[in-house]
Amino acid sequence: MLHHALRAGQLLEPDRTVVVAGHGAEAVTAATQDYDDEAQVALQTEQLGTAHAVAQAAPLLGDHPGDAVVLYGDTPFILPETLSRMAEARAAHDVVILGFEAADPGRYGRLVMSGERLDRIVEFKDASDTERAITFCNSGVVMAKTETLFSLIEAVGNDNASGEYYLTDIVEVARARGLSATAIACDEAETLGVNSRADLAAAEAVFQARMRQIAMEDGVTLAAPETVYFAYDTVIGRDTVVEPNVVFGPGVTVESGARIRAFSHLEGCHVSRGGIIGPYARLRPGTELAEDVRIGNFVEIKNATLDEGAKVNHLSYIGDASVGEHANIGAGTVTCNYDGVMKHRTEIGKRAFIGSDTMLVAPVRVGDGAMTASGSVITRDVEDDALALARADQVVKPGLAKKMFEILKSKKKKRDEGAA
Amino acid sequence: MLHHALRAGQLLEPDRTVVVAGHGAEAVTAATQDYDDEAQVALQTEQLGTAHAVAQAAPLLGDHPGDAVVLYGDTPFILPETLSRMAEARAAHDVVILGFEAADPGRYGRLVMSGERLDRIVEFKDASDTERAITFCNSGVVMAKTETLFSLIEAVGNDNASGEYYLTDIVEVARARGLSATAIACDEAETLGVNSRADLAAAEAVFQARMRQIAMEDGVTLAAPETVYFAYDTVIGRDTVVEPNVVFGPGVTVESGARIRAFSHLEGCHVSRGGIIGPYARLRPGTELAEDVRIGNFVEIKNATLDEGAKVNHLSYIGDASVGEHANIGAGTVTCNYDGVMKHRTEIGKRAFIGSDTMLVAPVRVGDGAMTASGSVITRDVEDDALALARADQVVKPGLAKKMFEILKSKKKKRDEGAA
Amino acid sequence: MLHHALRAGQLLEPDRTVVVAGHGAEAVTAATQDYDDEAQVALQTEQLGTAHAVAQAAPLLGDHPGDAVVLYGDTPFILPETLSRMAEARAAHDVVILGFEAADPGRYGRLVMSGERLDRIVEFKDASDTERAITFCNSGVVMAKTETLFSLIEAVGNDNASGEYYLTDIVEVARARGLSATAIACDEAETLGVNSRADLAAAEAVFQARMRQIAMEDGVTLAAPETVYFAYDTVIGRDTVVEPNVVFGPGVTVESGARIRAFSHLEGCHVSRGGIIGPYARLRPGTELAEDVRIGNFVEIKNATLDEGAKVNHLSYIGDASVGEHANIGAGTVTCNYDGVMKHRTEIGKRAFIGSDTMLVAPVRVGDGAMTASGSVITRDVEDDALALARADQVVKPGLAKKMFEILKSKKKKRDEGAA
Repeated sequence: MLHHALRAGQLLEPDRTVVVAGHGAEAVTAATQDYDDEAQVALQTEQLGTAHAVAQAAPLLGDHPGDAVVLYGDTPFILPETLSRMAEARAAHDVVILGFEAADPGRYGRLVMSGERLDRIVEFKDASDTERAITFCNSGVVMAKTETLFSLIEAVGNDNASGEYYLTDIVEVARARGLSATAIACDEAETLGVNSRADLAAAEAVFQARMRQIAMEDGVTLAAPETVYFAYDTVIGRDTVVEPNVVFGPGVTVESGARIRAFSHLEGCHVSRGGIIGPYARLRPGTELAEDVRIGNFVEIKNATLDEGAKVNHLSYIGDASVGEHANIGAGTVTCNYDGVMKHRTEIGKRAFIGSDTMLVAPVRVGDGAMTASGSVITRDVEDDALALARADQVVKPGLAKKMFEILKSKKKKRDEGAA
Repeated sequence: MLHHALRAGQLLEPDRTVVVAGHGAEAVTAATQDYDDEAQVALQTEQLGTAHAVAQAAPLLGDHPGDAVVLYGDTPFILPETLSRMAEARAAHDVVILGFEAADPGRYGRLVMSGERLDRIVEFKDASDTERAITFCNSGVVMAKTETLFSLIEAVGNDNASGEYYLTDIVEVARARGLSATAIACDEAETLGVNSRADLAAAEAVFQARMRQIAMEDGVTLAAPETVYFAYDTVIGRDTVVEPNVVFGPGVTVESGARIRAFSHLEGCHVSRGGIIGPYARLRPGTELAEDVRIGNFVEIKNATLDEGAKVNHLSYIGDASVGEHANIGAGTVTCNYDGVMKHRTEIGKRAFIGSDTMLVAPVRVGDGAMTASGSVITRDVEDDALALARADQVVKPGLAKKMFEILKSKKKKRDEGAA
Repeated sequence: MLHHALRAGQLLEPDRTVVVAGHGAEAVTAATQDYDDEAQVALQTEQLGTAHAVAQAAPLLGDHPGDAVVLYGDTPFILPETLSRMAEARAAHDVVILGFEAADPGRYGRLVMSGERLDRIVEFKDASDTERAITFCNSGVVMAKTETLFSLIEAVGNDNASGEYYLTDIVEVARARGLSATAIACDEAETLGVNSRADLAAAEAVFQARMRQIAMEDGVTLAAPETVYFAYDTVIGRDTVVEPNVVFGPGVTVESGARIRAFSHLEGCHVSRGGIIGPYARLRPGTELAEDVRIGNFVEIKNATLDEGAKVNHLSYIGDASVGEHANIGAGTVTCNYDGVMKHRTEIGKRAFIGSDTMLVAPVRVGDGAMTASGSVITRDVEDDALALARADQVVKPGLAKKMFEILKSKKKKRDEGAA
């Protein structure tokens, strides 16, 4: 949810981002840094109201020469266009409040306007009947010069029933100081809060719909857009095709002209031009694929670099590895990267041919142009152009399969009779 | 379809459930017991009308002291809330009929009311013009004291054009006996019948939408609810996260605080607290996972118990097995449970380390703290703390890969020339 | 997109189909032949207007005794029913134009009607105010006797601002020759053009919705229709069940009474009666499955024939192979069909039992009733009823696992200390 709010704000390209965390500061810090490692977190140790919360950001923001905007983690639907309109309104006014025409104004704070000038924000419980008839309501979102914002907040008092410092009071303070305030309107839907898991799923759906639309506008072909899930930071180049049922986790970049086939799952990876991924491919963090790499079905790649034209087409696990250009990895290959205690790396050379069902017991290197025989367990390095085998000879016992089946069937018969 | 109808009824928590089957009794019995093994099936060998059908349930239900409700297998949309409202109406009336305001009453039976009292149900063909103008129609759903219901049914005759015994006639019989009847209204959409595969898909969609809503209200996080498919009996604990594209077949329970990753498929299994399943994990019936078990991608588990903290991360098949706590199963491991005739079990001890591509030829046991070398075929038990190997030595033939490729290419050239 | 347009046209069962390609002729030819290898492509080397484009088809179509219809590659939504209505209108008129009532007629050409007779098509820029008030607009779709069409086109001039030959001018020519023209109306939605990737996705969604509807009407059970993706030529028999999240690529036929389980992906393959496919099965082109074949999870089949009752249940790759009836292929089996240069075939006999993790190094044959031991690499043919092994003996080293873990842990400790 925080990510949705951060994204809305970041489309303004802010110089600094500060998240004020009340409860769950650790989780908030982790989630914030996961989204943007330059964003900072300010802690609000006591819960003394919205003005007090914003004041916690002063040590991190107060010296900034530009504007500040206050957003809320639980209202993630506000559109970047709306924030741009607020920025425009700031040219003519010191304080800009975001309002909305409420279908059912209920107990929202009312925005008392004189033309385009905002006179004050009146809480429902303090409003006269005339004021209660106003349907233009306060969303809580505020924009002002950073210095002005914190200066106004300092003057806000807590002389009210709950003893809290309300951010909305800055409008009255501003007016008293002769500053001008205005309010612009957004759609009520943008101000909806996220109060439940169903709301969160709805927010996610809105986000996904936008991401799909943007991807298609950017020249990405989505065969079934409604089945493709993006992360906030997914980047996909023009003329790349994404088939149905693809999930992009955080940190994925795909260059132009690639194809992501159905049922693929990508996280923290890079796919270059001409890459063909899937179906049923799983790319995990640290996967770097050069041009024209081919990853096929039921293949998992993790923390591995594959050079141009390398192929891993079937049923393999390549982890903690580097694979040279035009290397071909056979079906059922596993990089045995974990010895039960530590992880080790595997290196596969250019044009190497890894036979099906090869176990590469890391740390190990297979040289350029080298080959491993199908079914081999490779525990020592293989030099360039060499063939490595680790295989028992084939023995054929005539008639023995038939005999064994007869024995097994008779055993089963006895067992079944015994059970009866 | 039957399951949808059974579920609607069971939300009333009935003491007994009887399904009356006309055609396809065997399939109905199987489907009924699959849903609820205490539900009973009564056979209607002749098709003599709806009253006759309900009468077949008398031997199984007739002695019940409480109320009975008659539902239909092909109208699965009736909401549990509607049935609760019928039960409330029963407090004041002997017979309660479920009606609906029809947008286009057409040839439905009409409910002739005097205030809240139901005078009679008149079939369209027998209705006067005034009666045909009534838009309050009969759904066929009936609730009454069990004894009353069967007693009324006994008095129903078949003196009509088709010679059938109609359940709707019980209202007239009841009124003649001085009993009171009423009808309550539900939404017409609830009474829609399922007459085609498209209707059935629509019924399923309604069911899935409800299940997703309930899951989220129960504290389950669904990243993309529209892509998660539940069975009628899926149980998921609070704070469990379900990622996109997950299918739950029958018989699944997931405890709190687990994570079911994308593209997973679960049937007849139990996932405990802290479990992380998938992506691309398939849990088949008989899978019991203790706390903090980790099942990774392209892994199939069947009829197996995994103790706390066990891990099967990649490309494995574990069937008919028990896995001890904190055991680690390497990529490409297979429990060879089938010898072509019978199935056998595999036991893996605590903290055992199964190397990648280990074949465990059942019946076999790997002891606590034991290890198998990558690529081994284990046919005999491995004692605790022992290392088992079944592996040919690695042989490296310098330059042979290069030579082989040259030979293969020249063979191909000859073949291609021969083909030309 | 072209496929969508071709499909619309082909529902009329035309004798011949000609695609006129301006730019990208090679890609158009490939896409056309991929859809219908009897369709022909005519090249328009200069872009001289719509009449000129249609004229390019004359050498391929001009001698046809029947009717011709002109459709557009970028308006793929026109319904077959609409084309049938045009064909009916042709009985009474020489030229039939497809029009639509435009909600916002904007700059569309207007259809000037006298009763059911079409007087002329007037371009917006040439229209009088009275004509601009007309809301019945031109879609561009034309139907006429083939001979008439090309004869009218020959008479069209390019005496206009852009110097192009417009197809719409044929109406004026027809009227001048005393031929009758009419226009019939379709829904505006059918005439929508595909001008962006979002439009294309929308066209695809409309197509998928139709295919799902048709499948259900044809007796296919779709558990979650909105998650099943069809190709233009998918054929599925009655009483087959398709579970959620299934993708059908081109060239798939499935007989009656099969089951396609969740997360399966099929292309260019045939599934016979009683087949059970998936979940997570991938059938690639050239897969031919006889009755009652079972393909399980994480299995890829390519260019292979499987006879009645054969089973490949887990984690296998079967490519370039034939599998005899009732053969059982164990988990982790791979047909090693590629030697780095050429592809080779594998033959598996009737009732053969392929042990888990068998590598079948093609070309190779396993005989009828033969068996391979788990973990074997089979490089030479196995005769009927024989057992083939290629396996190292199991060696157990007591206590060694424990010792190794201790050594590894102490190594890790040293390394971690070194790093600190």
